[in-house]
Amino acid sequence: MTKQGRFLVVEGLEGAGKSTAIATIRQWLEGKQQPVVCTREPGGTPLAEQIRTLVKQVHTEPLTAEAELLLMYAARVQLLRNVIEPALAAGNWVLADRHDLSSRAYQGGGRQLDTGLINGIRQTVLGDCHPDLTLYLDIDPAIGLARAQARGELDRIEQEQLAFFQRTRQVYLHIAATEPGIVVIDASRPLPEVQQSILAALDAFWEQGYAALA
Amino acid sequence: MTKQGRFLVVEGLEGAGKSTAIATIRQWLEGKQQPVVCTREPGGTPLAEQIRTLVKQVHTEPLTAEAELLLMYAARVQLLRNVIEPALAAGNWVLADRHDLSSRAYQGGGRQLDTGLINGIRQTVLGDCHPDLTLYLDIDPAIGLARAQARGELDRIEQEQLAFFQRTRQVYLHIAATEPGIVVIDASRPLPEVQQSILAALDAFWEQGYAALA
Ligand SMILES: Nc1ncnc2c1ncn2[C@@H]1O[C@H](COP(=O)(O)OP(=O)(O)OP(=O)(O)O)[C@@H](O)[C@H]1O
Ligand SMILES: Nc1ncnc2c1ncn2[C@@H]1O[C@H](COP(=O)(O)OP(=O)(O)OP(=O)(O)O)[C@@H](O)[C@H]1O
Ligand SMILES: [Mg+2]
Ligand SMILES: [Mg+2]
Repeated sequence: MTKQGRFLVVEGLEGAGKSTAIATIRQWLEGKQQPVVCTREPGGTPLAEQIRTLVKQVHTEPLTAEAELLLMYAARVQLLRNVIEPALAAGNWVLADRHDLSSRAYQGGGRQLDTGLINGIRQTVLGDCHPDLTLYLDIDPAIGLARAQARGELDRIEQEQLAFFQRTRQVYLHIAATEPGIVVIDASRPLPEVQQSILAALDAFWEQGYAALA
Repeated sequence: MTKQGRFLVVEGLEGAGKSTAIATIRQWLEGKQQPVVCTREPGGTPLAEQIRTLVKQVHTEPLTAEAELLLMYAARVQLLRNVIEPALAAGNWVLADRHDLSSRAYQGGGRQLDTGLINGIRQTVLGDCHPDLTLYLDIDPAIGLARAQARGELDRIEQEQLAFFQRTRQVYLHIAATEPGIVVIDASRPLPEVQQSILAALDAFWEQGYAALA
């Protein structure tokens, strides 16, 4: 695949403000007259949406952490090969509501699954398609869950204990601190301030992007 | 888990005679007054059966080889943790219509997926629960597919080209030749002869098993 577009990912715990941020970024891209394809994970293809239903459902049998991880990557590879890569190759920007970092944080942190297993799958499954920029909306899980709860019933993952989300947040923060391309945004602030930070990060990326493309 | 029972697996290409063999083995176990739990893969739990439907269906989008592999292991780990391990721990024999060897042969051979990826997943997901005896029913895929076809419509995997099944068979035979605990049975012969070979393998295992348990 020859990548023509740019791959933007929005990450964060439930209720952090990802969907709200996506709307802001979308507007910014429209202002720049850039074609954009939006995705969400898990999901985003017919089959991946069926997998999303499986992982969000409350089941009569325990869903093992390993099966959850494998289902997440099954959905991800479908979305990557059938939607994200073709969209980037055709010159679109891809704007993703969650991507690989979610699995590293939730399955690695929340579920405490073996990092070797996760990385083995990532390397083989994802290949060389990586986000160009990730905006991680950092929030105290208690605040995020309260925001999400105000919106309606909680799904299987949202029903986890606070400690699960605290472990997830720690992995998000650790990876953001040690790997390039991830901007941490304090999402506990009032929305206008959060939006200002998002736009500042995008403008900085745009300048760089121009430089890199030139 | 303390394993009390024994774990028997029947493997082979479509139409090799696995379901027929299961009936023979079941009768043999009844004769020995051994309690038995039968499983099939992919499937065997409510969630794993939903995954089975996903992998057998013909989809509007291409199902990537990687997603297929991950779905197979997601179903397998559910069956292993929620059915096979508890059944063995309770002293049952488990009689499985396909298990891990199928993925190694079909995804490794047929789909030619990276062995490192498959083995990484296997090691973490399967843990130390391995079959005690595997009966591999070896057949020329052309004969097996003709038998299966006589039974009805072919599913997504059964619609693969002959070369796919020939690669799968080669991996089956290679693993059977290099790893212990796998008995190869020539399944192209008339049913009574196949059944005789199956019973001979079971009787030999029973003798050994007694020795091992004593
Ligand atoms: N900075 C903010 N301050 C207060 N409320 C906010 C802020 N950002 C978003 N919200 C509100 O919090 C709720 C959750 O926001 P949003 O749906 O964008 O989060 P999300 O990260 O997409 O959640 P989910 O993970 O459940 O999809 C919404 O009702 C939204 O209006
Ligand atoms: N040795 C044999 N000779 C001829 N026909 C056989 C033999 N064994 C089984 N059959 C017939 O071949 C067909 C396929 O057998 P069976 O259903 O046991 O195979 P299978 O391996 O379970 O197939 P599948 O992978 O599709 O489940 C059946 O109609 C069965 O009666
Ligand atoms: Mg959202
Ligand atoms: Mg069968």
